[in-house]
Amino acid sequence: MKTEVTLGIDVGGTNTAFGFVDINGSCLAESSILTDAHNSAEDLFSRLYPEIEKLYSTISDRCILKGVGIGAPNANYYRGTVENPPNLKWGVVNVVEIIKQYFDVPVAVTNDANASAIGEMLFGAAKGMKDFIVITLGTGLGSGVVVDGKLVYGSDGFAGEIGHTVYDPNGRQCGCGKKGCLETYASATGIKRTVMELLANSIEDSILRNISFNELNSKMIYSSALAGDKLAIQAFEYTGKILGLKLADAVAVTSPEAIILFGGLAKAGKLIIDPTKKSLEANLFHVFRNKVKILQSGLTEGNSAVLGAAALIWNEIIKT
Amino acid sequence: MKTEVTLGIDVGGTNTAFGFVDINGSCLAESSILTDAHNSAEDLFSRLYPEIEKLYSTISDRCILKGVGIGAPNANYYRGTVENPPNLKWGVVNVVEIIKQYFDVPVAVTNDANASAIGEMLFGAAKGMKDFIVITLGTGLGSGVVVDGKLVYGSDGFAGEIGHTVYDPNGRQCGCGKKGCLETYASATGIKRTVMELLANSIEDSILRNISFNELNSKMIYSSALAGDKLAIQAFEYTGKILGLKLADAVAVTSPEAIILFGGLAKAGKLIIDPTKKSLEANLFHVFRNKVKILQSGLTEGNSAVLGAAALIWNEIIKT
Repeated sequence: MKTEVTLGIDVGGTNTAFGFVDINGSCLAESSILTDAHNSAEDLFSRLYPEIEKLYSTISDRCILKGVGIGAPNANYYRGTVENPPNLKWGVVNVVEIIKQYFDVPVAVTNDANASAIGEMLFGAAKGMKDFIVITLGTGLGSGVVVDGKLVYGSDGFAGEIGHTVYDPNGRQCGCGKKGCLETYASATGIKRTVMELLANSIEDSILRNISFNELNSKMIYSSALAGDKLAIQAFEYTGKILGLKLADAVAVTSPEAIILFGGLAKAGKLIIDPTKKSLEANLFHVFRNKVKILQSGLTEGNSAVLGAAALIWNEIIKT
Repeated sequence: MKTEVTLGIDVGGTNTAFGFVDINGSCLAESSILTDAHNSAEDLFSRLYPEIEKLYSTISDRCILKGVGIGAPNANYYRGTVENPPNLKWGVVNVVEIIKQYFDVPVAVTNDANASAIGEMLFGAAKGMKDFIVITLGTGLGSGVVVDGKLVYGSDGFAGEIGHTVYDPNGRQCGCGKKGCLETYASATGIKRTVMELLANSIEDSILRNISFNELNSKMIYSSALAGDKLAIQAFEYTGKILGLKLADAVAVTSPEAIILFGGLAKAGKLIIDPTKKSLEANLFHVFRNKVKILQSGLTEGNSAVLGAAALIWNEIIKT
C-alpha cells in the first residue's frame, strides 16, 4: 500500500522550501529554490513545478499525493490569496488557483504563523491540545491562535496579529505605520533595537558595543548572554517582560492551555522563556495563573515551515 | 401545538431575575426575587423554585419547557459551577447539579457576559454574525468572545476576560489585585474614577464638582455631558480612547466583524461609541481598518440578562 503524503510549500522572501510529509509528520523528501522576490507569483510557481515533479519522482513509486498546503506572508485562507506581501512584488494574487493548474488535489494557503500553529497541533508541541497560541519570533512577530481545535481566522481571514497589539502607543515606530507594536520589542529585530537602547542608556560594558546595528543578529545577542554579557542578558529580560505582558492580554481573550514560542529568537530557550513566563504570571488575571504553559516549538528545526504548510492541508483532509 | 420555551435565570448581586423565552427571543413571562447574597446557592434556588413554578403555571397550558440557562458571576460552563463570586457568599458550588434536582431538562450555566454574547447572537445585534465580541460595561467590564459561531470558553472555561487586559501596568488599582486593568477605566466605576481624576487635574468648572464619588453614577455623567458639561464630555472621550485602544488588541487576536457594547454605560450611545470607534481605528493594524462595526446591544433593555441566559440553553438545544 502506498503512503499518503501532502506537499508543503513555504514561500519565504529569499527561499521557497517544499517537501512531502506523511500523516505522522515525517518529511520523506524536501528541497528548495530561490524565491526571486522581484518576479511574479506565476513565475515562482512555474519554476517550482518541475522541481516538485523531480522530487516527487524519487518517492512516487511508494507515495500518493493527497493535497498541497502553502504557507506564505499576508495569505488569506478564505480567499486563497496572498495580498501585498511586504517582501514580495506580488500584489494581490490567488495562489490556490495557480497551484490548482498544476495539481488535481485539495489546496489551501495560510500565513506562515498559522501554518506553524497547525504544524504544532498535528506534529509538534501542541499535539492533543485544543486551545493554544503559537508565537513566531522571527524578523517580526507572527501568531496563530487555536480555539477548540480550530485555527481562528476571524471575520476576514486575518485573525492572529498579536505582533501588532500595542505595548506603548508612544513607543517604537513599527513597519506597519503604528507606534509601539509588540513586534518592535519582541522579535529578532525588536531585541536588536532593545540592545541599542540599552547601549544608549547604560554605561555597562558589553561585547555588543563593538557590533553595528546591521551586523547584529539575535544569535549574537544569545551567545553574548550565554557568555555572561550583562547587557545581552538584560536585553532578553526586557524582551520577555514586554512579551509576557502582552501575552497575558491574549490569554484573557482565549484562555489557551499553552503558548508555544517558535522561530529564531525562541531558540534562546530559558533566556527568553523564563522572563516571559515571569512577566506573564505577574500580569495574568488570577483565574488564569499557574495554568498556561510556555513551550518551545516541537517541530524539527530545519523543515518546520514545510511541516506547517503540509499540516495545513492534512488538517483540511482530516476534517472531511 | 405548544410553544417551546426555555427558562433563563440571571443571578445578580441584588436580584435574581427569571423568565420564559421562546426561540424568537420573546419573553412570555418574567419575574424576580431578591438574591440575598449572604445565603447559600441552595437557599436561593429553594426559594426560587416555587416562584418559577408559579410563573410557569401562568403559561404551562400553552408552553413546554425545553431547558434552563443560568447567567451568574464567575460561572464555569464546562464544570457547571459558580466559583467564588465576589458579590455572593457561595464559595464553589455546582449550580447545574442543584437545578437538575428541580428540572428534568438540559441545564447550562455561564457568566453574564457570555450569556449576553449568546443573547446578541440569537436575538440581538449579532444575529447572523459568526465572529464578534460583546463588551458589557457595568460595574466592571465583562466580555464574551464568539469565534466561528461558537462562544470561546478556552482551555479552562474562563476565556473572555478583556476587562482584565492591562492598559497601564502602573495605573489604577483594580479589584482583582492588578494595576491598570481596562475595567478600572472603561466601566461605570471606571468613568467615575476618570471624573475624579479630571476634577483633580483641571480647573474646568463642572456640575460634577458638587457630587461625591459615592453619589456619582454613570447616568449623572451622561446627563451632564448631554447638558454640555465639558468635563463630563472629556470623561467619555477619555474612556472611549482607552477602550478603543484595548479593543484594537482584541481585534488583532480574533478579527471580529463587530464589537457590541452592552450595559449601563453603553446607553450613552454616541458619547461613548464615537470616541471608542475613533481610538479603535487609530490603533488597529491596517488590515482590520474600516471593517469592525461598533454597535449598541440589540436586546430589550429590561430583561436582556434573562434573554441571554435563555439564549445560552437555546443555543445548546439548537446544536444537538
